Amino acid sequence: MTIKMTLDQAHDLAVRALQSCSCDEENAHAVADTMIAAERDICKSHGLFRLPGYLASLKSGKVNGSARPTIERIAPAVVRADGHNGFAPLTLEQARGPLTECARDNGIAALSIVRSHHFAALWIEVCALAEMGLCAFAFTAYKPSMAPAGGNKPFFGTNPMAFAWPRKDKPPMAFDQAASATARGDIMIAAREGREVEPGFGIDADGNPTTDPNEILKGAQLPFGGYKGSAIALMIELLIGPLIGERTSPESGRLDVEDGGPPQGGELMLAIDPTRFGNADGWEAQTEALFGELLEQEGVRLPADRRYQNREITARDGIEIVDSLYEKILKDTGLPREFGN
Amino acid sequence: MTIKMTLDQAHDLAVRALQSCSCDEENAHAVADTMIAAERDICKSHGLFRLPGYLASLKSGKVNGSARPTIERIAPAVVRADGHNGFAPLTLEQARGPLTECARDNGIAALSIVRSHHFAALWIEVCALAEMGLCAFAFTAYKPSMAPAGGNKPFFGTNPMAFAWPRKDKPPMAFDQAASATARGDIMIAAREGREVEPGFGIDADGNPTTDPNEILKGAQLPFGGYKGSAIALMIELLIGPLIGERTSPESGRLDVEDGGPPQGGELMLAIDPTRFGNADGWEAQTEALFGELLEQEGVRLPADRRYQNREITARDGIEIVDSLYEKILKDTGLPREFGN
Repeated sequence: MTIKMTLDQAHDLAVRALQSCSCDEENAHAVADTMIAAERDICKSHGLFRLPGYLASLKSGKVNGSARPTIERIAPAVVRADGHNGFAPLTLEQARGPLTECARDNGIAALSIVRSHHFAALWIEVCALAEMGLCAFAFTAYKPSMAPAGGNKPFFGTNPMAFAWPRKDKPPMAFDQAASATARGDIMIAAREGREVEPGFGIDADGNPTTDPNEILKGAQLPFGGYKGSAIALMIELLIGPLIGERTSPESGRLDVEDGGPPQGGELMLAIDPTRFGNADGWEAQTEALFGELLEQEGVRLPADRRYQNREITARDGIEIVDSLYEKILKDTGLPREFGN
Repeated sequence: MTIKMTLDQAHDLAVRALQSCSCDEENAHAVADTMIAAERDICKSHGLFRLPGYLASLKSGKVNGSARPTIERIAPAVVRADGHNGFAPLTLEQARGPLTECARDNGIAALSIVRSHHFAALWIEVCALAEMGLCAFAFTAYKPSMAPAGGNKPFFGTNPMAFAWPRKDKPPMAFDQAASATARGDIMIAAREGREVEPGFGIDADGNPTTDPNEILKGAQLPFGGYKGSAIALMIELLIGPLIGERTSPESGRLDVEDGGPPQGGELMLAIDPTRFGNADGWEAQTEALFGELLEQEGVRLPADRRYQNREITARDGIEIVDSLYEKILKDTGLPREFGN
């Protein structure tokens, strides 16, 4: 059973739910924006499905729902944002201007975000930069859920890496991919819905391959592409831990209060200005020529194109959330029932 | 049958072979350094196995064996090196100082290399930066050999991405991985040695899965991790093509003279100074704590550690190259026989 609502209704529900748990208006809007962007593109694992986790971390007091970030340039091409233990979306929103300016000044710039709580899809922030004409990377770690190649116990987070490339008069080419064979959210959803997952996604607590999502959640996820995905996960630990001075996934695993919400952690973004690399007049046409030729192969699509198609569907039809999620939101917040019977 | 020689003998052989084909001394040494670094670490697919290709590209006149790069800072954090159609190693060697200085000045810096011919392992250049205390990324494209996810014809190069992280008093953590399920060099070696390769490495000319390396060389390699490796390959095309204004893999495929040597192409490197990100006092200890905990899991090793172990073997025992390769080098160069009977 599902409940239908418009994107505006879903956004309003998210804002009121967050506010009911002592999140201030500015933070509630920033967090709702990221969840509803995911709902809009039918990325359910990062949509309202995350709301109970956000609420739990407000209730436990782990996250400060009224935090304001402080942002400074700590080197000519490095911007550092301290989230002061708030949710990441407001920090990302406020750091976007300084990062963009820094990348345009220098050709390339980095943004390190610390003391922040990240629970959203990374494509949201790289696409926001690409909409402003910049190429962007984003990396974040989480808590141990994935075994390293050769190992059999959780160590790495699912550690996503996102990339976006700007296009003239078109939405960006973008991808956002976990270093794990699949996103943790998808395994959680499969568990909730009682579905099996594909072989290669994870192992049980004894290190044996399994397709039961509940066993994987007790055991460990596996990296995509074997040792190559594992190497990318390790790279992300280094960028998020030692480089910017935040918690690695194993550190988060030990320090998080396990309230179901996002742990304290960091994020690294890189922004590159394609007009500062010696090909200012050619990069847009060469991009379109590359994509055009790629799409001549039947069966090939650009990453993110499915999201852009989904966007048309939800603009027309609104979104659906499962009953049980809506019930949980009502229960967690005490908000009055507005949808369903 | 193999021929044994010391690393110095192998280096000397490479230098003389290159010089016999009108490569000047400085370029010959730089190219030999990269091939012998690979031999030293028993990365055979990027060792002397590449020498006939280098020689062919000198003989065809495609590569200028006496080229000298020009290097300039084109934005505060962007260094651009024009290789003037020489081999990449000398350009990389000469750009290293300016890139390092630029990264230390700004916290992060990029190096774009254009009009260059790259045929070596990328870990060589990222490790050189990490030995100087910087974190480094490198990306390069090649010629079409890999089908995109969902497609069935070569489009992307094997498009490697390399990463290195500096360690106190230890060699860097580093990886260098093709976006393809395996390196093209390994498929070429399997073909030469008459061995099958693993399932998932490639498809034949009709798009059907095959384990015959000769059929894959006529058909297409496949990305690692399905659509995720394919997305990384596409990212690298954008960084090497539109961003820096060099040829994408499909463009190289159309423009290269197919002499068996490296096509004209570009490379992008990013260098990050870990002392400029707000964790100057903590990053080294946090790195070692992360690695120490990771290695507690049985069966897990750091990427590159096998190379460092191999380095001890070749320092003691020298290297071996297959007979047929040595014969080819003698035939291509007219050098006198010094090894074997």
